Amino acid sequence: MACCPKSVIAEILKAKGTIKSVYFVACGGSYAGLHPGKYFLESESKELKVDHYSSNEFCHATPKSLGEHSIVITQSASGNTPETVKAAEIAQKAGAASIVITNKPDSPLAQNGDYVLVPEKGSTANSGQGYSLKLAVEILNQTEGYENYDEMYNGFDRIDKIVGNATQFIAPRAEKWAKMYKDEKLIYTMGSGSAHSVAYSFAICLLMEMQWINSSAIHSGEYFHGPFEITDRETPFIVFMSEGRTRPLDQRA
Amino acid sequence: MACCPKSVIAEILKAKGTIKSVYFVACGGSYAGLHPGKYFLESESKELKVDHYSSNEFCHATPKSLGEHSIVITQSASGNTPETVKAAEIAQKAGAASIVITNKPDSPLAQNGDYVLVPEKGSTANSGQGYSLKLAVEILNQTEGYENYDEMYNGFDRIDKIVGNATQFIAPRAEKWAKMYKDEKLIYTMGSGSAHSVAYSFAICLLMEMQWINSSAIHSGEYFHGPFEITDRETPFIVFMSEGRTRPLDQRA
Repeated sequence: MACCPKSVIAEILKAKGTIKSVYFVACGGSYAGLHPGKYFLESESKELKVDHYSSNEFCHATPKSLGEHSIVITQSASGNTPETVKAAEIAQKAGAASIVITNKPDSPLAQNGDYVLVPEKGSTANSGQGYSLKLAVEILNQTEGYENYDEMYNGFDRIDKIVGNATQFIAPRAEKWAKMYKDEKLIYTMGSGSAHSVAYSFAICLLMEMQWINSSAIHSGEYFHGPFEITDRETPFIVFMSEGRTRPLDQRA
Repeated sequence: MACCPKSVIAEILKAKGTIKSVYFVACGGSYAGLHPGKYFLESESKELKVDHYSSNEFCHATPKSLGEHSIVITQSASGNTPETVKAAEIAQKAGAASIVITNKPDSPLAQNGDYVLVPEKGSTANSGQGYSLKLAVEILNQTEGYENYDEMYNGFDRIDKIVGNATQFIAPRAEKWAKMYKDEKLIYTMGSGSAHSVAYSFAICLLMEMQWINSSAIHSGEYFHGPFEITDRETPFIVFMSEGRTRPLDQRA
């Protein structure tokens, strides 16, 4: 079994010849965590069919293009999420290559994976999100080619240090903010581009699930088409301001 | 200029030979209104690259596969939404076929359309949603073929009467419900499959924009992966129970 995104994709391409579709499938925070790969590949690939499914949607409304020339990437930290386990099983039965990202290499989900990637604790580059993006970069580079491949890996090499420094830098302000807003009943989150999924997981996992605070992740580009109307001085918003090309959307909102 | 989804797609295919990608692009309620076409085509097509963009995301992060063999379908009731007007312009400049759905055939958006479809007032089959789905069905049938084509058109022929009857049937209960919950500060909506976009537009247009009630559209398949934790006896949810194959997700939630 190949160990890393690069060799995993190389092995799959060697076995299958061509890849026509790539599906990113998970639930909740893991669903959001796969989004960077989907977002990158959808935007950069000229040929591949790409989509992002909540697992049970994939199980009940399986896309017709799923087959031998597909790759299905699933993720579950525990490896026990039943609908994600089922999705990987459906992928394998259809003849697709099943890549699983999980902390538990002996879990039911891992058993439905042709390849299993275990995130490195404390790393961003080799987190579930990082693996999703690396897999997407490898799929693109090994099929159509990707001109910014070296730069991308340069970024992966540096991101852990950048995140570590940023965390240290922001922690005191974040703690102050958290204490100010800890009793709120409702906090909106907002983002665009690949940060939209960060806004989503922050809303459903951190605020709703862990803090029991009502929330909703709004796409920055949608803010002025409805959500704007509920904005007043009292309603807190967390904007995940993107560094990328969709930053103008976040700034406008 | 061709008048109807069938002839519009036939003309585009005659001019372009092949179609490789289809993008559905709009904002807010119009964005949600295009979802049925995206959902159908993504699920049923074996070859086509398909995606659904909030307009400004499409403008700032334009997909690489946009080109002469693309169709871009945009929608805005007024035809004035600036980022949607811009998206249709980007589509035309890239050589894609630009199909516009708008109530105003002389609007700026319509001027960026190679084909303009005007929804019929009071009709579901020929609403923006209906046109989105009909365009998707035509694209599939005229490229890869669609075995349920006749049945689908049978459905289009019957849907207006079905919706009319359902509206009459449900109106008294809906009015009673509305009066009971009119002072709520927060109402969640939920759905799956193509009904997820109905839950979304209900949340952002009807509740947030028009009623100033906080809301969030939750995918039924995601409910148990975070949002479940904020559910108590007091929090109202509107579930758009699907008639289709993702109904088990809605029932479970």
